[in-house]
Amino acid sequence: MQGEEPVMDIAHLGHVELLTPKPEESLRFFRNVMGLTVSGTQGDSVFLRGWDDYETYSLQLTASKTSGMGHAAFRTRSAPALERRVAALRAEGCEVTEVKDSFGHGPAFRFRDPDGHPFEIYYETQWYEAPPERRPSLKNQPERYPARGVNVRRIDHFNCLAVDVRACREFFQRTLGFRCTERIELDSGEEAGMWLTATNKSYDFAFTKEAHGVPGRFHHLTFALDSREAVLQAADTFLEAGVFIETGPHKHAVQQTFFLYVYEPGGNRIEVAHAGARLILAPDWRTITWTEAERRKGQAWGLQTIQSFHTHGTPPLPGETS
Amino acid sequence: MQGEEPVMDIAHLGHVELLTPKPEESLRFFRNVMGLTVSGTQGDSVFLRGWDDYETYSLQLTASKTSGMGHAAFRTRSAPALERRVAALRAEGCEVTEVKDSFGHGPAFRFRDPDGHPFEIYYETQWYEAPPERRPSLKNQPERYPARGVNVRRIDHFNCLAVDVRACREFFQRTLGFRCTERIELDSGEEAGMWLTATNKSYDFAFTKEAHGVPGRFHHLTFALDSREAVLQAADTFLEAGVFIETGPHKHAVQQTFFLYVYEPGGNRIEVAHAGARLILAPDWRTITWTEAERRKGQAWGLQTIQSFHTHGTPPLPGETS
Amino acid sequence: MQGEEPVMDIAHLGHVELLTPKPEESLRFFRNVMGLTVSGTQGDSVFLRGWDDYETYSLQLTASKTSGMGHAAFRTRSAPALERRVAALRAEGCEVTEVKDSFGHGPAFRFRDPDGHPFEIYYETQWYEAPPERRPSLKNQPERYPARGVNVRRIDHFNCLAVDVRACREFFQRTLGFRCTERIELDSGEEAGMWLTATNKSYDFAFTKEAHGVPGRFHHLTFALDSREAVLQAADTFLEAGVFIETGPHKHAVQQTFFLYVYEPGGNRIEVAHAGARLILAPDWRTITWTEAERRKGQAWGLQTIQSFHTHGTPPLPGETS
Amino acid sequence: MQGEEPVMDIAHLGHVELLTPKPEESLRFFRNVMGLTVSGTQGDSVFLRGWDDYETYSLQLTASKTSGMGHAAFRTRSAPALERRVAALRAEGCEVTEVKDSFGHGPAFRFRDPDGHPFEIYYETQWYEAPPERRPSLKNQPERYPARGVNVRRIDHFNCLAVDVRACREFFQRTLGFRCTERIELDSGEEAGMWLTATNKSYDFAFTKEAHGVPGRFHHLTFALDSREAVLQAADTFLEAGVFIETGPHKHAVQQTFFLYVYEPGGNRIEVAHAGARLILAPDWRTITWTEAERRKGQAWGLQTIQSFHTHGTPPLPGETS
Repeated sequence: MQGEEPVMDIAHLGHVELLTPKPEESLRFFRNVMGLTVSGTQGDSVFLRGWDDYETYSLQLTASKTSGMGHAAFRTRSAPALERRVAALRAEGCEVTEVKDSFGHGPAFRFRDPDGHPFEIYYETQWYEAPPERRPSLKNQPERYPARGVNVRRIDHFNCLAVDVRACREFFQRTLGFRCTERIELDSGEEAGMWLTATNKSYDFAFTKEAHGVPGRFHHLTFALDSREAVLQAADTFLEAGVFIETGPHKHAVQQTFFLYVYEPGGNRIEVAHAGARLILAPDWRTITWTEAERRKGQAWGLQTIQSFHTHGTPPLPGETS
Repeated sequence: MQGEEPVMDIAHLGHVELLTPKPEESLRFFRNVMGLTVSGTQGDSVFLRGWDDYETYSLQLTASKTSGMGHAAFRTRSAPALERRVAALRAEGCEVTEVKDSFGHGPAFRFRDPDGHPFEIYYETQWYEAPPERRPSLKNQPERYPARGVNVRRIDHFNCLAVDVRACREFFQRTLGFRCTERIELDSGEEAGMWLTATNKSYDFAFTKEAHGVPGRFHHLTFALDSREAVLQAADTFLEAGVFIETGPHKHAVQQTFFLYVYEPGGNRIEVAHAGARLILAPDWRTITWTEAERRKGQAWGLQTIQSFHTHGTPPLPGETS
Repeated sequence: MQGEEPVMDIAHLGHVELLTPKPEESLRFFRNVMGLTVSGTQGDSVFLRGWDDYETYSLQLTASKTSGMGHAAFRTRSAPALERRVAALRAEGCEVTEVKDSFGHGPAFRFRDPDGHPFEIYYETQWYEAPPERRPSLKNQPERYPARGVNVRRIDHFNCLAVDVRACREFFQRTLGFRCTERIELDSGEEAGMWLTATNKSYDFAFTKEAHGVPGRFHHLTFALDSREAVLQAADTFLEAGVFIETGPHKHAVQQTFFLYVYEPGGNRIEVAHAGARLILAPDWRTITWTEAERRKGQAWGLQTIQSFHTHGTPPLPGETS
Repeated sequence: MQGEEPVMDIAHLGHVELLTPKPEESLRFFRNVMGLTVSGTQGDSVFLRGWDDYETYSLQLTASKTSGMGHAAFRTRSAPALERRVAALRAEGCEVTEVKDSFGHGPAFRFRDPDGHPFEIYYETQWYEAPPERRPSLKNQPERYPARGVNVRRIDHFNCLAVDVRACREFFQRTLGFRCTERIELDSGEEAGMWLTATNKSYDFAFTKEAHGVPGRFHHLTFALDSREAVLQAADTFLEAGVFIETGPHKHAVQQTFFLYVYEPGGNRIEVAHAGARLILAPDWRTITWTEAERRKGQAWGLQTIQSFHTHGTPPLPGETS
């Protein structure tokens, strides 16, 4: 086994596109409450970024009839790495189309996972150049710390719902070389959750079980904060801003992330989180598999997982109001 | 340039061997004050680990006539990656010798950097298996949180002194594929410091200028804590334990690490640190170069760099008492 | 109204006596997990203290057939203040008996509140003198920071259950001069909770409604930690030590305390908490009254109050197992 | 001694008036960077408040030719307490004049301490009523958490310079009943610093030695933050806003406060600080006296006290530029 060479072609999660039926209120939330900065607009989209995102943006907010994820995009480690991953996707039988004129990055290749979520991979990108009034004091930082709202640092990860979690996991492992750090397997043998990474973060995205059989839905998007204290401060900021707090702050048992979940005005679930100094450094990390009995214990310190965590996704189900 | 493929063969820093002329007092410091656990002994060495180190140990503490670094070891990403790096070192003209019976890991290959510090690379390793009384409550963690002393989480990085910092940087970049995230260049053009990484941590080790022309000396070894608050608590723990605090807690301008430096009883400088959520995710990160004028401003919030930071290293200089 | 002079005779909560049917396990919990220090033993009692308690002890742990509160004791501001409060209690018709040979403090006067809980007031006290190995580095601190377990700083408050909360509140206001900072009034007009203070802390003790009509029961005892991060670290320490975590960490709506509740081996509920920089500085603070509808919203960030919080008390109800 | 009755007539520090030669820049600093809210203006003064100050304001910012402290004001515990303190001041031979139409509070009585600083005491006050857009989510809080800049919670204390520190201490102890928790006595017997309190905070104000023989100067004004992490975040906010950071964050040995000092645009030194859960609960606290040798050790974790801390005061010395 030691002879096996890991695929290292994906560098990191670049950005996520969120759809919102309430674009102005969503924008106000992400800018004023979350503390993101607007770096551009194009068509129905506004592009936003955390103060430590090195690319031009990490969030594309798109006015839409409904909520959900427009797409998620990964940056590859090099141009040849991009070519190799496109080839691997096509070898898998995936339809891959080139997207030429994206805001803030070069040519991208778009495809769908087995559950129908749209993804893109790209290599060329535009580094953020802060305008004078946003220039930081320390030159090893892309943008000034805003001291506004929740002050999220950078995009961290996202979570999709899928009817067949296992199929999705195997798809991303096979085609893009992601590694699975943790997963949940029900007593029935069905896979109820999986966490994949291409970095030393313990996950760059997750998929959990769609309870209603509707494909292509979205669970949440997460931004990183610098401390657990900042997550607690964020809870007060959300409370004062009238933002719906779904659950947290608390510590997940799976991945041990210190979490706080809210709903943005468009209905999408947003998380702010801190991972402490936890990193996955082992190149041959052994996937942790959680059983149904273990998950029944709730989160790390005993909080029962909130029911809506298993049901609320975006877009809403047919018949649901957002 | 986009065609260039990064070398991804080094996975992470595995462990550092520290030499101490006061082995019993040093052991007491690392176990009782730092909160490390002993996982074995062999010859003149005791092997210790933080509660989140996945390998058997991250610190080898070796009784010796004097202080300093015995060696530092990196784990490769695969067995072929190990072979490639050994070949690259030999191609460089380096003398590389195989070390067969190391504690806690498989065959290692030993060499010296241009300044004479001993290094090893290895792939096969022994994962830590906690004895029943050290078994954690959450299965995605190698060992129980100790709630003792400073509670360091895992090894983070080390820092060597070198007469020719630039030569060392180029050596590690060329032979092992490390990337340089930040560096200091004096007005004279001389390189006074460099920070290298093989991971998403912003550095896995650093070299800074040896002011006395004596090769092979050591600056410090760092363990990661989970929060800046934990670093502040550590300051009190060190104070109460009578440990000499050299400088900090404060935030470095370079790399923005929140730091605290002390001397262990053997004379070696030890750091506890927290990086917040800072990660280097860009695969093509552009090296930050600090000038002499910029470094004159001191640390991030204006603290002047303490004088001993430029002079104290281990082993002591001829004529110095430790 | 401005002519009214507040009674300032009670200085602060001195200590609480807890009864435990498992004295050895309880002692191990308070010493090893909570990080308290033993300062003496007498009869069936062990006396313990946090590192910043200035008196000899703040917790008296007494072996007993069952659990619950042995008594709670307040220190007065002066000797005449003690006399005045004894007189006021007697004027109320209270039976007050002098207790002469208490451990660590001078003559005390014992009485019962309307629900039957035993209380004491005293003035003369023995300041803690740390033995050499527990002497702190800073002379404005009574004892060394232990760096062990949860590291609680000092006693903070306690909470009793009462069949008639209002009667108890009025009793303590009238006889001892406590001020009521917050209270809960049900739609029926019944008082379900009240928080009293003699200091600038927003409460020194609380009474909440006994749901089973059994008088004299105890809800919890709380120790203060220095930060919310320390409360989060405590959660991990409790988890690893196998201590039952009932609820938290989260922020109370009432009083805004950041809380974490566990059960000690003897069955008593113990809290560790942090209040941030919140103080009641107004000498004429206007009592905050919470309605049933407001309390239905749960805690500050939306956590529903756990059911056992309304039912679990010590000693257990007849027929309950502890 | 136990028969002695402490005077409890002063309730707390109400507000401080700062003079600034740059009123617009100072206002921008206190509002945008410190996160205070404006609650009124009158003449040359703007009145500001932290989100947890219960009175209308805690900072009066007054346009002036130079910097320094306009006055500091304490609220008494009752109307009779106010009368008693006025009588005590007059008995001391102090000139006390009534001030009738102050913004936000009732009749005040103005006097000077032996070093010439103006002070006021008052009882009647106007509680802050938040306008709808500043109303908090939790009713036990006067104003919404702003999530802007440094987010200071409330006024904490101030520090004056005095030519004769001992005379000032004895004056405040005798006339107003403040208690001295800590002091510095030089080898010469001269008093170099003293910390006084009327509350359970370990100090409500301090006086330190004026090195230049100029009476009536001001050292700093302090606002409380909720955590040490918030003080660290403040350091970044100050850095990004171009505010001069004089020293910190670090922990004082005296009083153990976690501190950070900056200069506001008008030249006055401003501190943000957190005290953890430290309170002075003993009614008969024994004054801690620090010697010259002890102070030479610097701050708690060894930071040397910055030289400007002994020299910079406001207004500037004759000939100094601010």
